[in-house]
Amino acid sequence: SHLRFGPDPIKSPYLIDKANFVACHQSSFLDRYEMLSVAEPNGIFLLNSIHSKDEVWNYLPISVQKQIIEKNLRFYVIDAYKIANEIGLGGRINTIMQTCFFALSNVLPKDEAIKEIKKFTEKTYGRKGEKILKMNFEAIDKTLDNLHQVIVPKGVTSNFDLKTSMPEGAPPFVKNAIAKMIIGKGDELPVSAFPSDGTYPTGTTKWEKRNISLEVPVWSPETCIQCGKCVFICPHAVIRAKVYTRDVLKNAPSSFRYTEAKFSQFKDYLYTVQASPEDCTGCKLCHEVCPAKNKQDPKLKAVNMVFKDTILDREKDNWKFFDSIPYLDKDQINGTTVKDIQLLQPLFEFSGACAGCGETPYVKLLTQLFGDRAVMGNATGCSSIYGGNLPTTPYTTNKEGRGPTWSNSLFEDTAEFGLGMRIALDKQYEYALDLIDRLAEDLGKELVFELKNADQKTETGINKQREMVKLLKAKLKGIQKPEAKDLLSLSDSLVKKSVWIIGGDGWAYDIGYGGLDHVLAQGKNVNILVLDTEVYSNTGGQKSKATPIGAIAKFAMGGKASPKKDLAMMAMNYGNVYVARVALGANNAHTIKAFLEAESFEGTSIIIAYSHCTQHGYDMVRGPDQQKAAVMSGYWPLVRYDPRLYDQGKNPFQLDSSKPSIPLQDYIYNETRFKVLTRSNPEVAKKLLEYAQKEVNKRWELYKYWSEMPGPKQEEK
Amino acid sequence: SHLRFGPDPIKSPYLIDKANFVACHQSSFLDRYEMLSVAEPNGIFLLNSIHSKDEVWNYLPISVQKQIIEKNLRFYVIDAYKIANEIGLGGRINTIMQTCFFALSNVLPKDEAIKEIKKFTEKTYGRKGEKILKMNFEAIDKTLDNLHQVIVPKGVTSNFDLKTSMPEGAPPFVKNAIAKMIIGKGDELPVSAFPSDGTYPTGTTKWEKRNISLEVPVWSPETCIQCGKCVFICPHAVIRAKVYTRDVLKNAPSSFRYTEAKFSQFKDYLYTVQASPEDCTGCKLCHEVCPAKNKQDPKLKAVNMVFKDTILDREKDNWKFFDSIPYLDKDQINGTTVKDIQLLQPLFEFSGACAGCGETPYVKLLTQLFGDRAVMGNATGCSSIYGGNLPTTPYTTNKEGRGPTWSNSLFEDTAEFGLGMRIALDKQYEYALDLIDRLAEDLGKELVFELKNADQKTETGINKQREMVKLLKAKLKGIQKPEAKDLLSLSDSLVKKSVWIIGGDGWAYDIGYGGLDHVLAQGKNVNILVLDTEVYSNTGGQKSKATPIGAIAKFAMGGKASPKKDLAMMAMNYGNVYVARVALGANNAHTIKAFLEAESFEGTSIIIAYSHCTQHGYDMVRGPDQQKAAVMSGYWPLVRYDPRLYDQGKNPFQLDSSKPSIPLQDYIYNETRFKVLTRSNPEVAKKLLEYAQKEVNKRWELYKYWSEMPGPKQEEK
Ligand code: SF4
Ligand code: SF4
Ligand code: SF4
Ligand code: SF4
Ligand code: SF4
Ligand code: SF4
Repeated sequence: SHLRFGPDPIKSPYLIDKANFVACHQSSFLDRYEMLSVAEPNGIFLLNSIHSKDEVWNYLPISVQKQIIEKNLRFYVIDAYKIANEIGLGGRINTIMQTCFFALSNVLPKDEAIKEIKKFTEKTYGRKGEKILKMNFEAIDKTLDNLHQVIVPKGVTSNFDLKTSMPEGAPPFVKNAIAKMIIGKGDELPVSAFPSDGTYPTGTTKWEKRNISLEVPVWSPETCIQCGKCVFICPHAVIRAKVYTRDVLKNAPSSFRYTEAKFSQFKDYLYTVQASPEDCTGCKLCHEVCPAKNKQDPKLKAVNMVFKDTILDREKDNWKFFDSIPYLDKDQINGTTVKDIQLLQPLFEFSGACAGCGETPYVKLLTQLFGDRAVMGNATGCSSIYGGNLPTTPYTTNKEGRGPTWSNSLFEDTAEFGLGMRIALDKQYEYALDLIDRLAEDLGKELVFELKNADQKTETGINKQREMVKLLKAKLKGIQKPEAKDLLSLSDSLVKKSVWIIGGDGWAYDIGYGGLDHVLAQGKNVNILVLDTEVYSNTGGQKSKATPIGAIAKFAMGGKASPKKDLAMMAMNYGNVYVARVALGANNAHTIKAFLEAESFEGTSIIIAYSHCTQHGYDMVRGPDQQKAAVMSGYWPLVRYDPRLYDQGKNPFQLDSSKPSIPLQDYIYNETRFKVLTRSNPEVAKKLLEYAQKEVNKRWELYKYWSEMPGPKQEEK
Repeated sequence: SHLRFGPDPIKSPYLIDKANFVACHQSSFLDRYEMLSVAEPNGIFLLNSIHSKDEVWNYLPISVQKQIIEKNLRFYVIDAYKIANEIGLGGRINTIMQTCFFALSNVLPKDEAIKEIKKFTEKTYGRKGEKILKMNFEAIDKTLDNLHQVIVPKGVTSNFDLKTSMPEGAPPFVKNAIAKMIIGKGDELPVSAFPSDGTYPTGTTKWEKRNISLEVPVWSPETCIQCGKCVFICPHAVIRAKVYTRDVLKNAPSSFRYTEAKFSQFKDYLYTVQASPEDCTGCKLCHEVCPAKNKQDPKLKAVNMVFKDTILDREKDNWKFFDSIPYLDKDQINGTTVKDIQLLQPLFEFSGACAGCGETPYVKLLTQLFGDRAVMGNATGCSSIYGGNLPTTPYTTNKEGRGPTWSNSLFEDTAEFGLGMRIALDKQYEYALDLIDRLAEDLGKELVFELKNADQKTETGINKQREMVKLLKAKLKGIQKPEAKDLLSLSDSLVKKSVWIIGGDGWAYDIGYGGLDHVLAQGKNVNILVLDTEVYSNTGGQKSKATPIGAIAKFAMGGKASPKKDLAMMAMNYGNVYVARVALGANNAHTIKAFLEAESFEGTSIIIAYSHCTQHGYDMVRGPDQQKAAVMSGYWPLVRYDPRLYDQGKNPFQLDSSKPSIPLQDYIYNETRFKVLTRSNPEVAKKLLEYAQKEVNKRWELYKYWSEMPGPKQEEK
């Protein structure tokens, strides 16, 4: 942020390039951005760092040291994370850094400034409750005790400089173009730096190494039960598991951890869980969900957060080695359980989503299961931003070069956009079959038969068809007919594709709903994934029709007074649409089942996925707990509606979660979005809670009743 | 239509103003349009008329006779309606008139022409079945026998001329502006002919007197049981009933028919059913639905179709007198049954909808029940065309000058448009209350109390509030404060308004659905009426998401392969929306109940109304029968969902029609839209019928099961 102060009102908006005060709140940025180039001589530089005033100097890159000395900057350091942690503010350091600013900048006399900050803090946090207010006051007081000036040495002592280059091994485009954009110098790139055909390279987040976490997970093989839950939950695909044969180990670093694999299908294999320390966001979800307790120290689990600085080099080496171990082929893994799925390569990794995001695990799962043949249309929203934000791209490819085809579309037409993808694929497939018939004599009976009758219901079947297509391509090259040329360009369409239409609730419930409903009505084979955060997350928290009763959101600052729209039920009314409502944090297995069923259903499918989000107002590490509470309270009943069951004489509607076992308030009042109202307007909050509870009961009764409906009568089938 | 023929291809599009051949298919147009002004000397004039070649001359207006003589036209006459009727083609005269054209025009040699017509007829009607084809062949043959040249007298003999003026009593705007537009000379109007404030006068269809029917209904008081069904069904508000006291009769024409009123609340009143002969479209629905049989002649009912020419003058007089009898006040009538509702003034009359239209009876009913305080937003479609087509307007006002406020909006935003009307009304009401408080001392305690606490649940309550507002206005005129001026302009907002959002299925199911759903989610007090013809009627029959399986429509020429969207169920999923699915032709009482419940519900309501339509391909006189069949087959279950019932411990969902008693095919195959497919593609037709029947069964089971759900448990209420 750029802030200007002055005795006269400031009217013209511009950015600052001569700053009297420069603050760096996240020390990893120091290595990447040349932030002191804007500092004025004799100005102030404030750094949030875990290093003390006596040690910090040696952790600064050469150019930073140089500028501090040359510009004669006054240099201050504070360990804001430590203070915030001690007080109970978690990772929230804004009050602390703000206090430093006023204490140092002389914008106001110091005492007056502190008074004003407290006043303002009361205004901001007052309605969030006594406890939060007290913590923030404490933060202000503690700040002053922990803010230290650094005695600046006379000369440059560092032996490293700004990271302007990418890790070795990065492809040329990443080194030459993306690297520049990352440090904010994309403007300097010539047009010729970009691919001339307009394509944009994918799989580039892995080169960015944002290094934003203080702590990273380290795995304990002895304690681990190899369940895969840590891998499953990681929103950033940072922590992964692999099984491999013992010979792989011969080039392993000595610090590399492994154990015997406990998988019935992988006898005599080894198993490793490893995180990439430079990509980890420090959200702690992996640790949180780990069910294994260390018997020696019950505070420890099989994956534990460790301060990164102490282990960074070792873990970088371990990751590098781990990364070189090949993934098993998909058809070697029966990808239907969490335990199996941990072994599948994610084709969506290291996205820029908030640390601990509740949406990204679903997207990652999708790419693990179907990414090598997925075609995705993505609505505007968080998922389009973290899915395709310049300069890097989290969607990537496997060793055969296969990965999701992804494109963002408008808020108001993504469902139609995805439907168009399906129709295009179907047309290509149809035309390819037609060409095969026309070239039948040249191709030979057997190949024609195999290509046309391939059973692609399983990974094995799909792989076989891929082999057939390879054969076809080879043959086509030798045929001198125009049809052969056409078929060559279309032959990949013979392998089954999986079309996914993805977006948030703002898209699915509101702006894009007209189109989504239209697509539901068409019955085409597309899969819709709604990442439901119950609010417009990306644009700053406006209410949507997915926002629940009593939640505070923009345009519903007094608490939303109308119920959440039941999109699942509305989709089920079509009768021929596969519908699931899932919550990965509450039931992994149910989520996986829904994804597999949806994809295998030869018609339209929609999955509505509970996604915890920073907009809900609590530490994301508690996301899975909140998902559980949502289900246990009956607020988020897990359901599946499978039209195939009807023809089997069964009720297509399945209620997959149990009778509510906790009152709604035990779920909602863990979240600031609801809790705030109990303070700002307790009376309304009470009424809305009652209303919301009544709605939960009503809906539950209806679901229950419906789930008990007998299957169709046989004579009517 | 303007047709050009020539030996060379005609490339430039323009209208014809020098015609060698002029045909008038509808003789009532002769009086209104100066059609012979474009005829070339020595050309041909063909007239479809019920008068013979020897009589017809005297039925021509002066200017027509004059032009025939002066231009030396060859004049031919044919009674096409008679031929069509005898053969069984009903009112369809197109084949006959086309044959005349080719027989007379010399575009082709006559014999060749007849051969070509038969060929073309086979192509057009072949797939509609042997019977229809035969009828058309017969029409061609009979035409030549019945086409006669008229011996044109030497001089003009007529004593009447073109009707360029409006009936006496018409207001100046109708006389000066609308009259010109009706005869196609609107271009000649100066800007000053229009109201300077941009308002457009309403209630003007009644001056148009289109005279398009050959037959009109005549009522038999002796046979009538006063049920009101004829009045209820009339799509054009042409046939009406009134009760009145005996003294009213003193100025009645001697031919005026009446009888003792059989209404428990109207002792010693008389009763008359009367149609306006010049506004009747001849759709015969009134006769069709009349349940009373004449004991002497069982072919006759209490309302019978009679050739208009023989009774026109008498019935015009009768209508004029009938029209002068005042309607009773709404609060004298308990408008909850068909019998009562016949006595309510329709505030929507003589619209230009197709003869026998299935939509307009719903709109008329709405205006009878709530028109004096209705505010309506109307989506683009048939209802916006017949609702507000220049130059005349069917929405009208009662004797107090109250009638619907009506506006058309875009296809894609009408629900939102109507919601805006509601919000505006609520704001006005709120501000008016605020002003009343501020002026409390000037207005006096009692008036303030009455105005603020008015119970407007009944017509009596509403009338009382209107009186109070009158008092208020009188008082305000004497108060010299700015608030008084404001309140004066807002005081009408103190009377309860009824907001209606209206449109067809193209709007509600497709293009406007995103907004409709958004409005359903808001819970505001608006009423939505969906006139469901299951197809885009107004634009020529494109399929919508309301189109059923197996029906042929544009974009579904092979029969629609996916089920109709269940909009009612989708709306019910909100839980707090009143929902009804009705079919006026199948159950009048149910329809009325739904309208009353919807309007009285203080939240959002939606009514989905089965509307037979010419697009369905059968004579509209069978519309009510088809509505019955739709319900009896289980295709169109009548339902109501009333959220108020939940709080009474009851199941809000009510299934109001009985178990299917006829197979689906007994309903659908009465309609060309379905039947066509059995000829063009019998195999597909069979499959789609099976599919459709299965869907009907499936949905019925679900409805049935849901309707049997017990009410909410008491402790959970
Ligand atoms: S802390 Fe978060 S980002 Fe890092 S490995 Fe664990 S789950 Fe993934
Ligand atoms: S969650 Fe814990 S026990 Fe399970 S695989 Fe990860 S580290 Fe091992
Ligand atoms: S705002 Fe919410 S949904 Fe968006 S990236 Fe952050 S946590 Fe995920
Ligand atoms: S024939 Fe049709 S338009 Fe005429 S009065 Fe009867 S119902 Fe109305
Ligand atoms: S429908 Fe027949 S019986 Fe009923 S009011 Fe009309 S004319 Fe009389
Ligand atoms: S097309 Fe159908 S809905 Fe439209 S006016 Fe004609 S009958 Fe009525």
